[in-house]
Amino acid sequence: MIKIVLIGGGNLAYHLANQIIVSKGLQLVQIYNRNLAKIEIFNSVTKITNDLNELRDADIYIIAISDNSISSFSKKLNLQNKLVVHTSGAMSLNNLKSNSNKGVFYPLQSFSKNKKINFSNVPICIEAENKEDYNLLERLAKQINSPVYKVTSEKREKLHVAAVFVNNFTNHLYHLGEEICLEEKLPFEILKPLIKETSNKIKRLSPKEVQTGPARRNDTETIDKHLELLTQNKQEIYKLLSNSIAKTYGKKL
Amino acid sequence: MIKIVLIGGGNLAYHLANQIIVSKGLQLVQIYNRNLAKIEIFNSVTKITNDLNELRDADIYIIAISDNSISSFSKKLNLQNKLVVHTSGAMSLNNLKSNSNKGVFYPLQSFSKNKKINFSNVPICIEAENKEDYNLLERLAKQINSPVYKVTSEKREKLHVAAVFVNNFTNHLYHLGEEICLEEKLPFEILKPLIKETSNKIKRLSPKEVQTGPARRNDTETIDKHLELLTQNKQEIYKLLSNSIAKTYGKKL
Repeated sequence: MIKIVLIGGGNLAYHLANQIIVSKGLQLVQIYNRNLAKIEIFNSVTKITNDLNELRDADIYIIAISDNSISSFSKKLNLQNKLVVHTSGAMSLNNLKSNSNKGVFYPLQSFSKNKKINFSNVPICIEAENKEDYNLLERLAKQINSPVYKVTSEKREKLHVAAVFVNNFTNHLYHLGEEICLEEKLPFEILKPLIKETSNKIKRLSPKEVQTGPARRNDTETIDKHLELLTQNKQEIYKLLSNSIAKTYGKKL
Repeated sequence: MIKIVLIGGGNLAYHLANQIIVSKGLQLVQIYNRNLAKIEIFNSVTKITNDLNELRDADIYIIAISDNSISSFSKKLNLQNKLVVHTSGAMSLNNLKSNSNKGVFYPLQSFSKNKKINFSNVPICIEAENKEDYNLLERLAKQINSPVYKVTSEKREKLHVAAVFVNNFTNHLYHLGEEICLEEKLPFEILKPLIKETSNKIKRLSPKEVQTGPARRNDTETIDKHLELLTQNKQEIYKLLSNSIAKTYGKKL
């Protein structure tokens, strides 16, 4: 049985807590959050506290708080010989300042408040200072059914940037597409099957192989026509991404 | 029964032909292609030809050839009182130069050679010069189980640009993400659940509402760190898209 104390009251802490509670071999012994109201909901299934002096004994202390607070918060922890991990994609292991063993347990997924998450779709990137702790984190990830990847802090930073490209930036492109639809009084629904197909296609094929469109074909006539239809912000994005696509295939527009 | 002659030997013509053949109320009376070899496969189920003088009688002639050939090809058609449509998102109805009734039947989807397509996931954007032809095209779309949208040439042009954003550009972002993974010797698999979740999220929620990430949070510290990790091309894209996200929410980075 792996005993866990969870620290945080946000989306990730909420979903992790729920998953740990229902997973065999894991025991959520406590949740800590500065603001008790946010974790009140777990009061019936585990201990909750907002007092660091009352932290209970556990094998792993999982910090799921905002990136910028990790360093200052972890300084306050006095957990010698215990394993403390953070869950951030952007922060290195050394951001943990606790007098404890340290590790990282980064779930590479986007969590929404009201959407149930299936942890078998949440790759966990793990890092630890020693083999024993690594194995413990690996066991934890396996108990919640997540695929596990060993990723150093340096690689994880890059991976986090990659996640910004495929998640945050992609979502923004969806938004720009929606904006164009709304300007034309067309429902965004009309683009959704294409969005689905685009994301489905790369399940088995590399995105480099399946690239299509005017920039891929070097179809400068269509590109020029499209640029004329766009206002400044979208125009700049269209240009830059089209050039980047052309470059990828050894062309210049 | 709607009688159809299909013109073209590419991906779209191939998938359309297969769908028309299996749909009730539709009869594929002929396929034309300059290069007979490309449509040879349909020899057993319909007439095929590479001779425009041998075009058979039909209610609708569907031109599914490359955008740049539509104008010159349609000039050669002598189909007075018949309905000729093209299938292009980028070309206006007036690109058709046949002495016939004209229309547009634009399937807003990405077609791959070896991937079977479910036409209920292919929105069809329809345009015609008169109500009767519009109704005929609408019936055709319904017979192949596709959702129908009435879209003028002007709106369709914009819609085509929107499709470039959510399909071609999104796929390129996937490629950039994959590139970062490969540079770090991490499998692209690690990003796929996130890609799936990102595209799933907008099924019910607007992309504007669900935007996350450093640019959305105005987290300039993370943005600067990310920019340092990127080489020039990705750096420019990161900057421009981050600024665009910030602007969307009334901020400046």
